[in-house]
Amino acid sequence: MPYFDAASSVPLHPVARQALTAALDEGWADPSRLHREGRRARMLLDAARETAAEAVGCRPDELVFTPSGTAALHTGIAGVLAGRRRAGRGLAVSAVEHSAVLHAAAAHEEGGGSVTEVPVDRTGRVSASAYEAALRDGTADGGTALACLQSANHETGTVQPVAEVAGVCAEAGVPLLVDAAQSLAWGRPEEGWSVLTGSAHKWGGPPGVGLLAVRKGVRFAAPPPSDERERGRSPGFENIPAVVAAAASLRAVRAEADAVAARLRPLIERVRAEVPRSVPDVEVVGDPVHRLPHVVTFSCLYVDGEALLHVLDRADFSVSSGSSCTSSTLTPSHVLRAMGVLSEGNIRLSLPPVPGESVEADVERFLQVLPDAVREVREQVNAPGTTAERSTAGQDGRARDEGPEDRAAPYGEQSAPAPEEGGRELTVNALGTVCPMPVIELARHFDDVPVGGVIVVLADDEAARVDIPAWCEMRGQEFLGVQGDRFRVRRLS
Amino acid sequence: MPYFDAASSVPLHPVARQALTAALDEGWADPSRLHREGRRARMLLDAARETAAEAVGCRPDELVFTPSGTAALHTGIAGVLAGRRRAGRGLAVSAVEHSAVLHAAAAHEEGGGSVTEVPVDRTGRVSASAYEAALRDGTADGGTALACLQSANHETGTVQPVAEVAGVCAEAGVPLLVDAAQSLAWGRPEEGWSVLTGSAHKWGGPPGVGLLAVRKGVRFAAPPPSDERERGRSPGFENIPAVVAAAASLRAVRAEADAVAARLRPLIERVRAEVPRSVPDVEVVGDPVHRLPHVVTFSCLYVDGEALLHVLDRADFSVSSGSSCTSSTLTPSHVLRAMGVLSEGNIRLSLPPVPGESVEADVERFLQVLPDAVREVREQVNAPGTTAERSTAGQDGRARDEGPEDRAAPYGEQSAPAPEEGGRELTVNALGTVCPMPVIELARHFDDVPVGGVIVVLADDEAARVDIPAWCEMRGQEFLGVQGDRFRVRRLS
Repeated sequence: MPYFDAASSVPLHPVARQALTAALDEGWADPSRLHREGRRARMLLDAARETAAEAVGCRPDELVFTPSGTAALHTGIAGVLAGRRRAGRGLAVSAVEHSAVLHAAAAHEEGGGSVTEVPVDRTGRVSASAYEAALRDGTADGGTALACLQSANHETGTVQPVAEVAGVCAEAGVPLLVDAAQSLAWGRPEEGWSVLTGSAHKWGGPPGVGLLAVRKGVRFAAPPPSDERERGRSPGFENIPAVVAAAASLRAVRAEADAVAARLRPLIERVRAEVPRSVPDVEVVGDPVHRLPHVVTFSCLYVDGEALLHVLDRADFSVSSGSSCTSSTLTPSHVLRAMGVLSEGNIRLSLPPVPGESVEADVERFLQVLPDAVREVREQVNAPGTTAERSTAGQDGRARDEGPEDRAAPYGEQSAPAPEEGGRELTVNALGTVCPMPVIELARHFDDVPVGGVIVVLADDEAARVDIPAWCEMRGQEFLGVQGDRFRVRRLS
Repeated sequence: MPYFDAASSVPLHPVARQALTAALDEGWADPSRLHREGRRARMLLDAARETAAEAVGCRPDELVFTPSGTAALHTGIAGVLAGRRRAGRGLAVSAVEHSAVLHAAAAHEEGGGSVTEVPVDRTGRVSASAYEAALRDGTADGGTALACLQSANHETGTVQPVAEVAGVCAEAGVPLLVDAAQSLAWGRPEEGWSVLTGSAHKWGGPPGVGLLAVRKGVRFAAPPPSDERERGRSPGFENIPAVVAAAASLRAVRAEADAVAARLRPLIERVRAEVPRSVPDVEVVGDPVHRLPHVVTFSCLYVDGEALLHVLDRADFSVSSGSSCTSSTLTPSHVLRAMGVLSEGNIRLSLPPVPGESVEADVERFLQVLPDAVREVREQVNAPGTTAERSTAGQDGRARDEGPEDRAAPYGEQSAPAPEEGGRELTVNALGTVCPMPVIELARHFDDVPVGGVIVVLADDEAARVDIPAWCEMRGQEFLGVQGDRFRVRRLS
């Protein structure tokens, strides 16, 4: 039963379990009490803080424990924005941050602040110069109070140039919050951060523990209401057993990190190389060099990601698709959208960082299973290039009854002369259909347009905005733009 | 090693431990994922919600899990205040609520809202008519959006008339939030609440779990930033193992509750009766009838609470003093202050609600140890009535060097004629001394004033504001009031 969704959550590390069990016996009392049970709890809490601070690379009194990585991000962002209110109300975040950062940014905007989104390249990487420009933009709004950057992306594994961005921030006198949730297991964050956050269940610690480190000297005003626990930065009774388990497992995971990375990285490289060879119309996304050792993500044209997840689940593979934080919605991942890459049929493999003999064999079996799984899902929707499409095009019941081809106009029928092209346009109606149907309709009718001609796809599915341009990029065709629900593509070859 | 601080936190219930261990294996994955690990986690979460909802007395979709009871209170209060903003900006809270409620109220005031504090009687109990008056006050500010009342007090064990107050609130159309942290272990809350909160580590569940139930129909807007987890009311990765353990242990604790209460209640009654017999100058506080079965609180005149804690700790008793939320500060408990009872030398015994053979014997031994412990602490400060005071009054080194008696003016020396008394006043200078010294100075010099005369105590210790009036009440003397640092007391007998 291979579990390849480690970037979402991993099973408890054996060291975490051991520490948790012990701390449940010793650390259940209120650490602010003067009695022996309280003093024992306080000692465990202090020791856990020292261990975690050492792993993060900060002083113990700079670190507090929060109930989750999300809480650490929310408090970290709100705390600096409030503490540095006089410096300005600007907040700069990369376009591929975790949704917890984007939610905090949206709350800041609702409260009257301004947010600048820093773009990424097609591999999902930011540049120091883009942050420099964003900080300049912030000055126009009265100054940037805070910049945020993840250490590595949760969907693509792309590692960000934290130290370079930190340099730009330092020069501008703007503190940098680094969301290190995806990378803390692998090593100490790069230097230069002002605020750092993490989440224990990502490295094999228990759920219920986040880390929030704030460098001395950074103006910080925790959002009210607060209490006297955790330096006034994380209200509520301390979860000492979980905190002890989190700290102990972080140390243990770090000790194993290099060996685990050396084992997983070649497996990921193999997936990156092999999938495009064995599955047609696949785009492997994320930076090929600057990447986490255990994550690989690819998108498959003409595939419904959820359907592919189910087929892989039947074959015993647990993987994820799109952004974890939008899996209950129909909108495509904001990360893939920001990168400008295909979002349909998106699959992320994130290998568990625990020692185990079967990972290699499991990855090999995944590579064997994947081509048939993708073919099966494509055939369900009569995707271009499938046997189903070639032998029964136009005859498949579902496609005929509900598919858009009945509505697709024959070449030229509904089109009007397009003066700027000097030719006519083919319009394909995919309104009311969802991913991957609009792109399938585009592909299916593409050959009906002569080279140089234009095809118009009518589509109101949110994912089409990501996937039609991405299809053009993959196919070397020209995306002319979208107006309302009209996507225009020129055939170049 | 008797642990008598159950109202702060109790060790993990065996059922909680068992459930936690099992759920760590089964419930570590992200419940929003579609793969089998995610589905398994989702099932555990759903089952835990049903169990907890049954215990609370609400529908599963009315209940969310938060990272702590404090978080449940903060979100519950902010959520109703935001959701009912149009109804008004008034918030009514009893004067003896948990500090988490008072912190949320302070945040509401900072944000421009108004807060009405509902007074309590000398037993710490509110009345429905006092809430009725508070809701009327709120109307003057544009309407009360929310009223808050604890089910039972954490310091005194006093049980509040929740159903009566709920009736008054319903009549006024104001939702009532009930903080049930101290009583959920003992039974379902009384009917009539609109929002209900709880905290698992108070009933033997793990830390890291709070409950927030919001009745259908109550307008609620969770404070931003939020995410899609827990109905948008509690952001961050779900702590499923802890939630499962919390729900399972709540059910188990409830099944045992009547039997445990029947065993603990007579022990508490015995302490309430015996302590005033065996220790002079003690005030047992809290309602004698409407009370939790496991809590008893008393205050000892002329005693430094922290010093008494240490002596009892040496005798192996873990008890607490004052409010748990102010133990790191020097201010007296806001609960005792609101009740108008003595705060100095305050001790709370809260017996663990777990079956165990030694509680009876431990309580007996406590009753044997207590009189000597109090005497020892009183002798350290030369308190009135101690051997030390009788034999060495004015000669004790510490008192002579640092104590206020060198500064205490002889009768009349610093006093001016007090025309309204037609007599002279004795002024005792206790400035710069802390609890219990100002009250000791008052008592020590009290006999120097004739019946009908007035003694003035100069004191700048915060606790004197509670304890000098309380001393008068206990002694049947007349407290004339305080102006600045001048406390005036008339001798009646």
